[in-house]
Amino acid sequence: MPAQLIDGAAIAARTKSEVQTRVRELTNLGHRVHLVALLVGGIDAGALYAQRQGEACRAIGIDYTLHKLPATITQKELKHEIRRLNADASVTGIMMHLPLPSHLDAPRLQYEIDVVKDVEGVNPANIGYVVYGHTLIAPCTALSAVELIKSTGVRIEGAEAVVVGASQIAGKPISLLLTEQMATVTLCHIATKDLKLHTRRAEILVVAVGKPGLIQPEDVLDGAVIIDVGINRIALPDGTKKTVGDVEFDTVRHKASHITPVPGGVGPMTVAMLLRNTLRSAELHFGTTK
Amino acid sequence: MPAQLIDGAAIAARTKSEVQTRVRELTNLGHRVHLVALLVGGIDAGALYAQRQGEACRAIGIDYTLHKLPATITQKELKHEIRRLNADASVTGIMMHLPLPSHLDAPRLQYEIDVVKDVEGVNPANIGYVVYGHTLIAPCTALSAVELIKSTGVRIEGAEAVVVGASQIAGKPISLLLTEQMATVTLCHIATKDLKLHTRRAEILVVAVGKPGLIQPEDVLDGAVIIDVGINRIALPDGTKKTVGDVEFDTVRHKASHITPVPGGVGPMTVAMLLRNTLRSAELHFGTTK
Repeated sequence: MPAQLIDGAAIAARTKSEVQTRVRELTNLGHRVHLVALLVGGIDAGALYAQRQGEACRAIGIDYTLHKLPATITQKELKHEIRRLNADASVTGIMMHLPLPSHLDAPRLQYEIDVVKDVEGVNPANIGYVVYGHTLIAPCTALSAVELIKSTGVRIEGAEAVVVGASQIAGKPISLLLTEQMATVTLCHIATKDLKLHTRRAEILVVAVGKPGLIQPEDVLDGAVIIDVGINRIALPDGTKKTVGDVEFDTVRHKASHITPVPGGVGPMTVAMLLRNTLRSAELHFGTTK
Repeated sequence: MPAQLIDGAAIAARTKSEVQTRVRELTNLGHRVHLVALLVGGIDAGALYAQRQGEACRAIGIDYTLHKLPATITQKELKHEIRRLNADASVTGIMMHLPLPSHLDAPRLQYEIDVVKDVEGVNPANIGYVVYGHTLIAPCTALSAVELIKSTGVRIEGAEAVVVGASQIAGKPISLLLTEQMATVTLCHIATKDLKLHTRRAEILVVAVGKPGLIQPEDVLDGAVIIDVGINRIALPDGTKKTVGDVEFDTVRHKASHITPVPGGVGPMTVAMLLRNTLRSAELHFGTTK
């Protein structure tokens, strides 16, 4: 029997609707939720992405300001711009589009973002708070993966979870959040000697590598929950292109109990998590957390 | 054949000697290494520990100042004290003895310690930098465990490592540092369903639970490297007391390839790591990192 699909788009829509309701309540109390996004350099892809992000915010009542900064901005100038936004009481959230021009040091700049306004959860201190079990704001992609696991109703506490891919943005924070939820987590990566040994025993399998077809049916446990964080564009024999994950969906779905499609799984939920984090930052900022 | 002992005391002595040499070089350049320790409330155990710490520092040429603060100090006052020390150019390192009185929020205060002066590596941002692979200063106990593994010459990259115990101070940072060293790490804890399943396949086994006898010979892989972070005081049948780890040393040593004794393993090395971190903070402060 094929797995149940984890419908990321539907779950994201529900989450956005909940965020919208709360944003409206805050607005009625006189509190405006206001996200400022920094875009350094005029890269087209970044501008398009930022435009869509702005639309997603405004659609649910969040003010969105895009600060376009020149590619020639110095580390010091950008640091001061972030500090100015930290101090601006009308700004409730700050995010910085990546990549930055190569002369800028992204981790040092992310550290400058006020931990409370850090809607992407990328300030190292916010990752550290996750390690410490005092999570303020966690990274969006990691939250997305964990929320989709929760949506299945499968018990995370005590589950054998295997995360494949140890990136800063996905694999590592996902493993930390799953540990926080009391799963027994194994974090695999490029140096792992016998990857299948681990994936085959995973009750919860999260794959975040960026390699189409990495996970085949023989690599997964019967009844596993599978979250595919990979987003890969591949060329089909007829020359058209298609977006796929790291898991061979059509075959693996017959072994999994629940599986995310790509597209339509982790991707849309990550956008919803950014919006939920933006609300969370505002609640912390206004001191209105419930 | 019994395992080779990992002589934490000897390795610690060597590390201290290296730190001493470099502290002397810095002193000759006119740079004084100066650690300020904060002790809140007059707890006797804390004062004794602080006194020994001061002796360890002075023995290798590090200036040590103990600031005793009243148990009634407020969060705000302590925060300002930390900020004052952050701004004081003659202070190269800051640490805060725990536990704090219950009205104080330790994680928030640790976050106030300048990341460069944070010799214990407890600022959440420093843990976050470990996650991000930009380690500035890592927590001492975790460094101690990893340095003792390195001392064996066993290859960490690609090794199957199992960490038992997911505490903030030991298990979690140890698993992060081992991941940084490219081991495949499984982090086990109280909710792990089948602990032995994991410990039995561990090429590197780190145990940090605080439970005497937790690890028996049948729980370990032949030839494993075993690091025992546990420190437990137990009563012997004759009424005397003894310090033991979490691993049943006398039996397990016949299966391991390398094993730390307790006492004399992780403990002394942790003190050496605090001193090495204190040097590291000073190097970062003076901009003299080699």
